[in-house]
Amino acid sequence: MKIQDLDFNKGNGLIPVIVQDASTKDILMFGYADREAVEKTVETHYTHLWSRSRKTLWKKGETSGNVQEVKDILVDCDEDTLVYVVKPHGPACHTGNRSCFYRKLDI
Amino acid sequence: MKIQDLDFNKGNGLIPVIVQDASTKDILMFGYADREAVEKTVETHYTHLWSRSRKTLWKKGETSGNVQEVKDILVDCDEDTLVYVVKPHGPACHTGNRSCFYRKLDI
Repeated sequence: MKIQDLDFNKGNGLIPVIVQDASTKDILMFGYADREAVEKTVETHYTHLWSRSRKTLWKKGETSGNVQEVKDILVDCDEDTLVYVVKPHGPACHTGNRSCFYRKLDI
Repeated sequence: MKIQDLDFNKGNGLIPVIVQDASTKDILMFGYADREAVEKTVETHYTHLWSRSRKTLWKKGETSGNVQEVKDILVDCDEDTLVYVVKPHGPACHTGNRSCFYRKLDI
């Protein structure tokens, strides 16, 4: 599939992105991408997202060095959600944890 | 962690939910939950979400029979995204695929 097949309209120009570790298959983080962030990811093979708080395109690890090589990008049935399958260079989480999902809800 | 620790405000009452297969670790689907959907999931141990198109709480598989037993719920560092770790009873996707993420972007 191609970027022009993706539906950015439902999310006001943004598409949810799940980042998954290519080797462990752990879910590392979750964010949003605009079309430019997806384009940069496809061009460079490094995770790029849109920061909703800072309202800017960002390359994951640009300041921390904890970049992520993108091995595959999966597309869902509705063409409105992506999975970046990555090889992480360092922790995904700003807390220093490998994954942002390091806690559980009591169930 | 408890449901009252979760931040439903950023998403206007909705929190993104990634559904992951407990045994294969494949990402099966993606959706949103309001507080009631998370409560129902915790109470029943079956995937419940909020349908944004139908504007209603729904139990995954209620009509198709393809329910999902929830084994764990992971919480991210910002307490605003969840992972339901599930044992699926049938395909997650309305297309009949096990996962909604059955295609790749050209990279």
